[in-house]
Amino acid sequence: MRVLGIDPGFAICGWGIVDAEGSSLKHINHGVILTTTDMRFQDRLVKIKNDLQDILTLYKPDEIAFEELFFARNVTTALTVGAARGCAVTVAAEYTDKLYEYTPMEVKQAIVGYGRAEKFQIQQMVKMLLNLQDIPKPDDAADALAVAVTHANAGYAREHFRMK
Amino acid sequence: MRVLGIDPGFAICGWGIVDAEGSSLKHINHGVILTTTDMRFQDRLVKIKNDLQDILTLYKPDEIAFEELFFARNVTTALTVGAARGCAVTVAAEYTDKLYEYTPMEVKQAIVGYGRAEKFQIQQMVKMLLNLQDIPKPDDAADALAVAVTHANAGYAREHFRMK
Repeated sequence: MRVLGIDPGFAICGWGIVDAEGSSLKHINHGVILTTTDMRFQDRLVKIKNDLQDILTLYKPDEIAFEELFFARNVTTALTVGAARGCAVTVAAEYTDKLYEYTPMEVKQAIVGYGRAEKFQIQQMVKMLLNLQDIPKPDDAADALAVAVTHANAGYAREHFRMK
Repeated sequence: MRVLGIDPGFAICGWGIVDAEGSSLKHINHGVILTTTDMRFQDRLVKIKNDLQDILTLYKPDEIAFEELFFARNVTTALTVGAARGCAVTVAAEYTDKLYEYTPMEVKQAIVGYGRAEKFQIQQMVKMLLNLQDIPKPDDAADALAVAVTHANAGYAREHFRMK
C-alpha cells in the first residue's frame, strides 16, 4: 500500500510518500509545494491544485492522509490556510475516496508514543523508521512523512481516522 | 457583458447572473449551491466545485465578482468558510482571469450609496435595478446578485477591484 501524507498550507504545503508492506516501510519521496507572496491568491490556489495533481499522477498513492488543521493564529490566517486545505482536499477527493485525517497530537502519539513530543523527536523517529541518511527537509515535508508513517502503521484502526 | 456574482459559503454558496449592456442591466438567473451537514467535508467541497463548474458551463459569464470574506465567527468557522471560498476561487480562476472582489461595504456603497445600509435596503434596490417581481430568495442569492450588479456598474473603476 502506498500512502501520501499531506501537511496542508498556503505558502508551504508538505507532502511525503511511503510504501508499506506488512510492517516494513519504504520511503519513496517527499517535498513541498511552494507559493510566494508575489503571486495572486487565485494563482497560488491553482498552483497547489496542479502540483498536487501532478504528485497523484506520478506516484499513484492508494490512500491519502492529511494532517488535521484546527488552529490558526487568527481568522484572517484561518481563511487563507482553510482555502489551501479546501483546494487540496477537493483534488484528493476527486482522486480517491480513501482520505484520512490525523491531528498533530495523534501523529506524535503514533510516532514517538507521546502526544506532546517535540518536533525534533518526531523528525528523528521518521528518519529512523524510513532508513533515511538525514532528517527530511523542510519541516513541512517531514511533517507530511510523519502523517504518512502514522497512517501506514495504523492498521485496521485507520478506519477510525477517515475524513468525514 | 455577462457577470457572475458569488457569495461564497460552505453550507450555502449564493450565485447570481446579470447581463450588462451599457447602463442597462438584465437579470438572467440566481440560486444557491447547498451542502448539508450529513455530507462529508470532502463531498461538500466536491459538490461546490461541480455545481459551480455547471453554472460556468451553462451561463458562460465574461467576468466573475466575489463578495470578499474577511470575517468569521471564529477560527474553526474561518477554516471551513475559507475552504469553500478556496474551492470556488480555484474553479473560477481556471475558467477565467477576470476575477474581482468587493467587500460587503463596497457593495452597499455601490447599490444604495451608503456603506452601512441594511440588508433589506440592498435587496429592495437589487429587485428594482433588475426589474424583478419579488426580492430574490434566499438572502445568499440576493447577495450574489448585489455583487454582480456592483461589478456590472463599476465601469472602468472595476480594475481597482481585481482579485489579487
